[in-house]
Amino acid sequence: MASIANLDSTKDEQLVLPPDVTAASFRQALQEFAKVVGADNVTVNTVEALQPDAEGHYYNIPKEHDLFYVLEKDQFIASAVVCPGSTEDVSAIVKIANKFLTPLWPVSIGRNFGYGGAAPRLRGSIVLDLGSRMNKVLEVSDRDCTCLLEPGVTYFQLHEHLQKNGFERLWIDNPDLGGGSVVGNALERGAGYTPYGEHFSMHCGMEVVLPSGEVIRTGMGALPGNNTWQTFQYGYGPYPDGIFSQSNYGIVTKMGVWLMPDPGGYQSYLFSFQNESDLPEIVERIRALRIAGIIMNAPTIRNTLIDAAVYGPKSGYTSNKGFLSSPEVDTIAKKIGVGRWNIYGAMYGPKPMRDIQWGALKSSFMEIPGAKYEFPEPRKDGDPMSVLHMRDETLRGIPNTYELGWLNWTCEKGSLLGFSPISPATGVDANKQYEMVKRRFTEFGFDYIGTFVVGWRELHHIVCLTFDKTNPEQRKAAHRCIELLIDDAAAEGYGEYRTHLCFMDQIASVYNWNGRAMLKFNELLKDTLDPNGILAPGKSGIWPARLRNRGFELKRSIGETKL
Amino acid sequence: MASIANLDSTKDEQLVLPPDVTAASFRQALQEFAKVVGADNVTVNTVEALQPDAEGHYYNIPKEHDLFYVLEKDQFIASAVVCPGSTEDVSAIVKIANKFLTPLWPVSIGRNFGYGGAAPRLRGSIVLDLGSRMNKVLEVSDRDCTCLLEPGVTYFQLHEHLQKNGFERLWIDNPDLGGGSVVGNALERGAGYTPYGEHFSMHCGMEVVLPSGEVIRTGMGALPGNNTWQTFQYGYGPYPDGIFSQSNYGIVTKMGVWLMPDPGGYQSYLFSFQNESDLPEIVERIRALRIAGIIMNAPTIRNTLIDAAVYGPKSGYTSNKGFLSSPEVDTIAKKIGVGRWNIYGAMYGPKPMRDIQWGALKSSFMEIPGAKYEFPEPRKDGDPMSVLHMRDETLRGIPNTYELGWLNWTCEKGSLLGFSPISPATGVDANKQYEMVKRRFTEFGFDYIGTFVVGWRELHHIVCLTFDKTNPEQRKAAHRCIELLIDDAAAEGYGEYRTHLCFMDQIASVYNWNGRAMLKFNELLKDTLDPNGILAPGKSGIWPARLRNRGFELKRSIGETKL
Repeated sequence: MASIANLDSTKDEQLVLPPDVTAASFRQALQEFAKVVGADNVTVNTVEALQPDAEGHYYNIPKEHDLFYVLEKDQFIASAVVCPGSTEDVSAIVKIANKFLTPLWPVSIGRNFGYGGAAPRLRGSIVLDLGSRMNKVLEVSDRDCTCLLEPGVTYFQLHEHLQKNGFERLWIDNPDLGGGSVVGNALERGAGYTPYGEHFSMHCGMEVVLPSGEVIRTGMGALPGNNTWQTFQYGYGPYPDGIFSQSNYGIVTKMGVWLMPDPGGYQSYLFSFQNESDLPEIVERIRALRIAGIIMNAPTIRNTLIDAAVYGPKSGYTSNKGFLSSPEVDTIAKKIGVGRWNIYGAMYGPKPMRDIQWGALKSSFMEIPGAKYEFPEPRKDGDPMSVLHMRDETLRGIPNTYELGWLNWTCEKGSLLGFSPISPATGVDANKQYEMVKRRFTEFGFDYIGTFVVGWRELHHIVCLTFDKTNPEQRKAAHRCIELLIDDAAAEGYGEYRTHLCFMDQIASVYNWNGRAMLKFNELLKDTLDPNGILAPGKSGIWPARLRNRGFELKRSIGETKL
Repeated sequence: MASIANLDSTKDEQLVLPPDVTAASFRQALQEFAKVVGADNVTVNTVEALQPDAEGHYYNIPKEHDLFYVLEKDQFIASAVVCPGSTEDVSAIVKIANKFLTPLWPVSIGRNFGYGGAAPRLRGSIVLDLGSRMNKVLEVSDRDCTCLLEPGVTYFQLHEHLQKNGFERLWIDNPDLGGGSVVGNALERGAGYTPYGEHFSMHCGMEVVLPSGEVIRTGMGALPGNNTWQTFQYGYGPYPDGIFSQSNYGIVTKMGVWLMPDPGGYQSYLFSFQNESDLPEIVERIRALRIAGIIMNAPTIRNTLIDAAVYGPKSGYTSNKGFLSSPEVDTIAKKIGVGRWNIYGAMYGPKPMRDIQWGALKSSFMEIPGAKYEFPEPRKDGDPMSVLHMRDETLRGIPNTYELGWLNWTCEKGSLLGFSPISPATGVDANKQYEMVKRRFTEFGFDYIGTFVVGWRELHHIVCLTFDKTNPEQRKAAHRCIELLIDDAAAEGYGEYRTHLCFMDQIASVYNWNGRAMLKFNELLKDTLDPNGILAPGKSGIWPARLRNRGFELKRSIGETKL
């Protein structure tokens, strides 16, 4: 048997041990994992592996770390990585973890960028890398427009699979970046931009390995020989799927996903608005059109700078390194030919249907003074892509990574920290949120890069804080800025739908109605399903009994540090 | 303080005591309930209350019994009824129930017709009648098209509330009968017929009293002062709502429901098909149109006899009292002017949109030889209503009870037993299901009355077995017929989405993949959340530890009784 990479050469003091686990016990656990998955699929991690490259950047850090670390780079690091090849492997690994109390942090692909990447919440957890080997498209039904996926299937891969196997008529729905896991994104309740953009609601059927190692199939999957696991979500009795999202109650090893049949026509568009103050009016109009179903997907309202950042770094636009004033942003908007706010949307269906949709959209949005619209122009070879060209692909389910560039807005190899509060889809609320974030960003010297996404009825405000992780002061500022914003938001009744590892405890503490009743309920489920506390401790602020109140919850820096 | 109705006058031996509870203890529990809700809101039940009327019918039985009892009429009866007035009352009642081990069976309105009505699964449970006093429309948002309801709000009441309070533009979605609870139906995962017909997926936010008496609010409700409880379903962390549907893990005391804004136009239609053998082709065509979103709601494919039964009893059509042959059904179809299969559907949206939908529908369905279509004709005063007129109201969210009449198909005051398997939405499967049911119904002498409803991607086959409950042999036949059908269906990979009390154990045992892993998981949650086993024991086949394997699970009659 091959030996586990690095294990023999790593001294005990180099190991990143999880709590309650001795070096000997940890080594033994890894040996047992290796018996299940093979030594080649177990890798030991060390703090020393975190070495900067020649330029001082940490781009060489293993994928099981947070590429965009906000706290110290070794805060959220794994002790090892194990790559299972099957549901049976996962079940066996979970049983071993129970024996040795080694926490497991499952990731699909690990590209949860802005929210912690593949890094575990609890230092020393073992990253259970599902995606490396469990990455098959298990089934596609052209008849039912469904598929069954393993966690490692990326949007790129699913799209390619459909294109190459005669399923061209089936569209996928991808978020802004196509490299992530279809299953993982749905479990984190991420969103995309076609009419199937609300990913969790478009899943159908799960196979889940419980923390005990037991395997369940939800929905119709619980019926042996069934033929509707991917077509009917509920099955019989309690419908548990939701408790396996954003949670640490089970490891999803298979998931069904609904696919949209080609709608028979497609047209993307851009409405751009010239004034910073247009935001409330835009949101009011979108809400009405969205609830009425005239807008069939989740349109985004993007500010100038996110588009500017896609085209190039800030230094190309201005010598001001601080927060840009409104007139400065105006100048940039004019230069790149977009508005202060820009709706990137699309219409789906045959032309006569789209014509009706377009009539309603145009007559509503063009009432806002200064509004303009455009459609993507055909590109000749060598023509540069506009953001509209990029969104044109994203909104029809063609995965891409065009927009990664905006990470480098303020520095090369910049980092991203996401802040994503939910509010009513009203002009008043959108504006309140915008002002709230701008105030803090001004205070801390960050540029506002953000997008408002209108879901079924709510507004997702996606704030993209870009920072230079090589600068400790910037990291500290980024951290404190978001920490304060979470409280600012809560005071207005806004809560986040998803978060970076370093705010999981804080946000859980904000959802505290009736004496933290929901958190207590979550903890009760946790202690029942995972009595040894081995699965993703701390995920969504949920700690198992064994590790609760032992100092692993992050303290707020507010009031403790001064900048 | 007023005394509890009947309590003093009822002798110990008349009480319908639940297991593990003495008469003294039961009386004490009721006294404590009365302290919470007032003596007027506690009623003792007795077996003697089940007295037939002068004609031998049991229509006077209290609502906490199953009006359509299949087994003996005192099999599923309650020991008492308690009517709470608030969430606080419910919480207090639950705590008392824990002290005295008195099982509670929560009902909203209790019109779960065909599936057990308001009756408890475990004899002697106390019906917690939420609907009598907790029946307010708490909020309606015209802006967000949402409402917040207590469990006692019926479809009729919600509709009237909207009409009378300036919310005419908001549509509701109701099932075939409008007298049920909006909340209760969604929790049982019932369906209606507008584009918002999948009721559970259209709920948003719950308040739940746990079996411990703790109260949680799900989704954004967990955030104090939030403003998106009814607009964003998920909140942060695990999404638990699904485990409170078809379950016994909590009592839902408030629920948000999304409402559809007036789509700007509406047109119902009927396509009728002349041949029994047309079913597969119809289903194939509907599936394609439904997944493509051209059919925006769940259309029903009804057989001749369900329409015939709406118009009048069987005796008006034929002297044959047994299973009707295909030519006999043909004769009835001609007489009432419908097909052997009839699609009742509707189009939503402004006329130009509907014209496009209609073009697609017409060109597809009219390819089936013999197909006809019609639209509802305006009615003059005194004109009788056709089934199409009735469906025209149902499909646009106008609650009604027009179709109750078909219960009396074979006898006056007939009873209904529902059988509702799920299958792929294919012609082959629809036909296989139809033949399967017809074979058993022929064997047991019931007429096939049924409807196929096409959900997002699956087929709900709703079989309505009508029987005469005053005839013990008919009840036995009905019971055994469905029992056999559940097994027939499972052998083909079909499982039921919902069931009558008397099949809950059987169906739970059929969803037994991987050594009953899902049932074991459900039991684990049950024992954690309800350690004393006081909430709805036996619901969906889930028994609490205290009552498990003690003989309360129903044995199958198959192989035990001969007819």
